[in-house]
Amino acid sequence: MSWESKVRRTVPYTAGEQPKEKNIIKLNTNECPYPPAPGVRKAIDELALRSDDLRLYPDMNAADLTDALSAFYGIDSSRIFVGVGSDDVLALCFLTFFGSGDPILFPAITYSFYPVWADLYGIPYQSIPLTEEMGIDPYEYMPRLTGVKNGGIIFPNPNAPTGVEESLTTIERIVKANPDSVVIVDEAYIDFGGTSALPLTEKYDNLLIVQTFSKSRAMAGLRVGFAMGNEKLIGYLKDIKFSFNSYTMNLPSIMLGKAAVEDREYFELTTGKIVKTRERFKEELRKMGFVFPDSRANFVFAAHPDFSGDYLFTELRKKNIVVRHWNSPAIKEYLRITVGTDEQMDAVVSALREITGRG
Amino acid sequence: MSWESKVRRTVPYTAGEQPKEKNIIKLNTNECPYPPAPGVRKAIDELALRSDDLRLYPDMNAADLTDALSAFYGIDSSRIFVGVGSDDVLALCFLTFFGSGDPILFPAITYSFYPVWADLYGIPYQSIPLTEEMGIDPYEYMPRLTGVKNGGIIFPNPNAPTGVEESLTTIERIVKANPDSVVIVDEAYIDFGGTSALPLTEKYDNLLIVQTFSKSRAMAGLRVGFAMGNEKLIGYLKDIKFSFNSYTMNLPSIMLGKAAVEDREYFELTTGKIVKTRERFKEELRKMGFVFPDSRANFVFAAHPDFSGDYLFTELRKKNIVVRHWNSPAIKEYLRITVGTDEQMDAVVSALREITGRG
Repeated sequence: MSWESKVRRTVPYTAGEQPKEKNIIKLNTNECPYPPAPGVRKAIDELALRSDDLRLYPDMNAADLTDALSAFYGIDSSRIFVGVGSDDVLALCFLTFFGSGDPILFPAITYSFYPVWADLYGIPYQSIPLTEEMGIDPYEYMPRLTGVKNGGIIFPNPNAPTGVEESLTTIERIVKANPDSVVIVDEAYIDFGGTSALPLTEKYDNLLIVQTFSKSRAMAGLRVGFAMGNEKLIGYLKDIKFSFNSYTMNLPSIMLGKAAVEDREYFELTTGKIVKTRERFKEELRKMGFVFPDSRANFVFAAHPDFSGDYLFTELRKKNIVVRHWNSPAIKEYLRITVGTDEQMDAVVSALREITGRG
Repeated sequence: MSWESKVRRTVPYTAGEQPKEKNIIKLNTNECPYPPAPGVRKAIDELALRSDDLRLYPDMNAADLTDALSAFYGIDSSRIFVGVGSDDVLALCFLTFFGSGDPILFPAITYSFYPVWADLYGIPYQSIPLTEEMGIDPYEYMPRLTGVKNGGIIFPNPNAPTGVEESLTTIERIVKANPDSVVIVDEAYIDFGGTSALPLTEKYDNLLIVQTFSKSRAMAGLRVGFAMGNEKLIGYLKDIKFSFNSYTMNLPSIMLGKAAVEDREYFELTTGKIVKTRERFKEELRKMGFVFPDSRANFVFAAHPDFSGDYLFTELRKKNIVVRHWNSPAIKEYLRITVGTDEQMDAVVSALREITGRG
């Protein structure tokens, strides 16, 4: 025996490739193709003036940042929790809310971190198949109908990597049918034309919304995510967070994050552009014979009846276009292509025309 | 029943007060009284030029930062792990290395986060009394002598809040006697004249050293901590870390952290100044009749035979001097006073002279 027998082992999640070459069109990790709001640059200049303050611990409540979010979403700061990217917030939610011992439920095709966190914390889970249209069937999440007692429910809306958005009616049905569980809606991709379930948190105290600065706010490099829900839910999250690490949000995150949130006009302009580009891109994909669920996210999840996912991925990579492709049987024929600028998507369309000979 | 019955509850750690008034002498959270290295200011200017890059995910390995640490400490980057402050690194170590089910061991008087993390992860623990001189007795940590099988060992060196440093001989004895457990030496305060156990990691594969940017590197506001050990230990930590959140170090942490590490001269200058101020301050405390273990950290843990800890704390607070005081019985007569600048410590000495009428 040695100390190694005591080590907790896990198969880590594999994130998308971060290619180092220049001249790459990088459409594999759903980053925003536009830079952060102009105010962020100004906030960096302010940070330079305040650089001596880096010697001090930051505000453990990150009040400047939560106050900015409070103003943006029109809810009290006590209903907002911030963390080091939405992955940090979500992992903490698993630890805080999903430990009852009953299996938690999430879709069979979804964000691949969910089963990893569940395994890590020893949380049992059941993954629920999607409908034929790659949607979520609310009835599968109702304990009275299925006879399955659950320890919590989580799903992204729009779902990843399908891009399919569920209606607020569907979400409300699930939340209402599960008063004894916390239901987490992971809205990482909600800002590209989707409808947030945030208003439902006024009515249901078991609903938590999680969002991120990494996509619509063009700040993947800053690592900021947040949760919104009733004060009690947020309070429980804070209690657990403060037993780990009181100070997770560094001074740059607070100052630059605040600046990003304050510019609503830029946010609407850039997300609006991405939506427009996405719809144009879908049109071109259709012409080439691609099939795909109707994405409301900043990516399209597409397959072609005549070409394998692996082949398309490899051919695009040869042309310096990097998209995301998984080898798991259920989705191996699909590519997840991030929506970039119009110019980038024109290049993707040209490349796919050459590869498929269609369109 | 409701969802609340499924929530994991905890009593969160209470961090030191962060007073908002100006004209406060803040000596309660062991921050560095000097600003970060001048290169940090330059790194912020570079960040301004690269602000568009904030839209992209940061390097998940934070290679620029670990390479800078690698050059500073003369060890390979594969032996270094970075996280969001040493609290993040330490909490992850508890999860990764301390889950065998056997009780972990740490001193009875020590960093108050240890029992909190243990409780959070359901790790049993035994706290071992300090010696009369507030030191660590290595024999108490030897399974063959005590008959107690342990699941791991952790202690700060110098210890907090006592400031007492253990010799490398003591540390080596503990590490050597526990080949079946990971031994973590939390060196948050090692840079103020202490001797790091880092060289022992070449000899023992079960030894992990944890350090922080929050004290000697004047970067509490950046949230950077790191672990050093053999490649296998670091690899296990990375596996668990990547199953939580692949990207924890934001772009500012990587760029500004690198700049802080690269300036060895400034680091030695400022830590040297703090050591000198500490020794001068101890002399003045002695003259007033204070008793204290011989601190090798950037704080002094002192009590006065004629005045209660609570009284001294309250009187100093009235004079706008904030130090740390705990109510737990074992240490309630003590104040933990951070070593600031010479000017700040002169003010503390004057205040204590007035309060005690001594010196």
